[in-house]
Amino acid sequence: MKAVGINGYGTIGKRVADAVAAQDDMKIAGVTKRTPNFEAKRAVELGYDIYMSAPDRENLFEEAEIPVKGTIDELYDKIDIMVDCTPGGVGAKNKEIYEKMGVKGIFQGGEKHDQIGKSFNSFSNFNDALGADYVRVVSCNTTGLCRTLNPIKELGGIKKVRAVMVRRGADPGQVKKGPINSIVPNPPTVPSHHGPDVQTVMYGLNITTMAILVPTTLMHQHNLMVELESDVSIDDVVETFEKTPRVILVDASRGLGSTAEIMEYAKDLGRPRGDLFEIAVWRESLNIVDNELYYMQAIHQESDVVPENVDAIRAMLEMETNSEKSIARTNKNIGIIG
Amino acid sequence: MKAVGINGYGTIGKRVADAVAAQDDMKIAGVTKRTPNFEAKRAVELGYDIYMSAPDRENLFEEAEIPVKGTIDELYDKIDIMVDCTPGGVGAKNKEIYEKMGVKGIFQGGEKHDQIGKSFNSFSNFNDALGADYVRVVSCNTTGLCRTLNPIKELGGIKKVRAVMVRRGADPGQVKKGPINSIVPNPPTVPSHHGPDVQTVMYGLNITTMAILVPTTLMHQHNLMVELESDVSIDDVVETFEKTPRVILVDASRGLGSTAEIMEYAKDLGRPRGDLFEIAVWRESLNIVDNELYYMQAIHQESDVVPENVDAIRAMLEMETNSEKSIARTNKNIGIIG
Repeated sequence: MKAVGINGYGTIGKRVADAVAAQDDMKIAGVTKRTPNFEAKRAVELGYDIYMSAPDRENLFEEAEIPVKGTIDELYDKIDIMVDCTPGGVGAKNKEIYEKMGVKGIFQGGEKHDQIGKSFNSFSNFNDALGADYVRVVSCNTTGLCRTLNPIKELGGIKKVRAVMVRRGADPGQVKKGPINSIVPNPPTVPSHHGPDVQTVMYGLNITTMAILVPTTLMHQHNLMVELESDVSIDDVVETFEKTPRVILVDASRGLGSTAEIMEYAKDLGRPRGDLFEIAVWRESLNIVDNELYYMQAIHQESDVVPENVDAIRAMLEMETNSEKSIARTNKNIGIIG
Repeated sequence: MKAVGINGYGTIGKRVADAVAAQDDMKIAGVTKRTPNFEAKRAVELGYDIYMSAPDRENLFEEAEIPVKGTIDELYDKIDIMVDCTPGGVGAKNKEIYEKMGVKGIFQGGEKHDQIGKSFNSFSNFNDALGADYVRVVSCNTTGLCRTLNPIKELGGIKKVRAVMVRRGADPGQVKKGPINSIVPNPPTVPSHHGPDVQTVMYGLNITTMAILVPTTLMHQHNLMVELESDVSIDDVVETFEKTPRVILVDASRGLGSTAEIMEYAKDLGRPRGDLFEIAVWRESLNIVDNELYYMQAIHQESDVVPENVDAIRAMLEMETNSEKSIARTNKNIGIIG
């Protein structure tokens, strides 16, 4: 059993912790918290050891009656790898500390590729992370693009991808972000960073992206236009997506015509926190005109990268060298259907 | 002075009425109302004669103390043309009545092209409406596409257009429509009807569109990818948009980075109802890669078709045979800057 630390037990960190804890070949050695909030309290209830990520805050945790095991410095000895789930930009600074402490580290999509050196997606470049010390799991949007573009590339070859990403303005628990009643080009420049980000794991892919923010909290939505190299049929695409792990086809005609209904479905599936680890592709949206494939998909921004973090651990610690086996193992342990 | 009737004094009707009244070559002979609501009261205050569109409702209007001039049947004699602004689908039925009464009619984008027979955009096919009896002004989204695609087509030729339309869920005054917190593919099939609708006025244009609904009320937002036939520069495009009437360039860097801020700007311009008749193109979004032009634009769904309705009146009554002159006259009279 490999021992995993989680640095930053927030939106992503708590989910990765649960996914790691659910595996049969790794365990959580401890999680770090800066603030003794409700998530810290819940971590204790779930049996995770808490280490303070900032010094001199014992009294805050004492006041909140949340027991801590020590500071983050005492956690490094106990782990084989740290999954850094701190806010974007903090991870790159933490990397220097991990290097000094001689501990491997996984970072999230909020960090810059160049600062970590290697990016990761289970389906695109698993092998490149084998034995690596520092790896960045690409963002939720990029992960969503890779999940469906990879199998399409294998099926028919990709000449050019155009994608318009309609992003949720804030996560459900974020009350200080907007927009409330507006559509915000973000960035207002074209292309957005998502295309280059996909290229950090799908090397050489010809892709241009545009992105906007809208006033919703539930999921991102992507509109894809994929020029194919060879002749494929919609049936081929359906068959491909049906057998692709972590991708599900949903039918608007069966009541799954929006991101809200898809989230309702995830709750009905009994998923922890109502998460949907899979990318949901609207079956009705699939169309091919002049060798160009069109489709729409929904991305649960809080959870789709979670299984990728688990696979990255296996690759970096060389617990598994076959991506398909790691993906299958991760999926089975966290109950992924797609 | 030509006499114009407005059938349906709602979101579009009241705006067209004001725009017609502001012209120096036409006047409002009367507007119809079915219900004596606040809009009916305001119409009286503005000096418009009200005709009831449904019979046997005198007592309702009497109760509301809103004076009426008669029923719609009494309005036909007084007008040269009727602008039908009734809800989508009703206009096609009204057309049969107008034919019987021998009155010309303009319809809105909610009607089907085939049922009206001729569609209209001031910049795309003004001449085809000269002397016509029945014409449909294309929808706000289609009008927005035509406004910017027409000049681009003239500038560099268009090989293929891909557009993703992010539509507002409801108008600001609609309290019974959604979505509230969701992204809704609408339609969930690809392509959406917007491409074919553009083709009703820009004949033969190669265009594919995808559309979604989002929880905002202010404006639609479009993401455009336009493959060009010839080499043009961003400077060419900027210059073209700068001289195109009813198109304005806005800078995210100057505080116009969202639909909300653009609407705030329209209010600051002192526009009636805070309307923005022009299509707002984000200057920063303009980019050309591999002879493909990318841009983002915002469409004020309640008002962008208003000047087109005025131009359609002039074309159909042959008050003006030159589109540019009609556009300039309309613009001047309603204070359009772009």
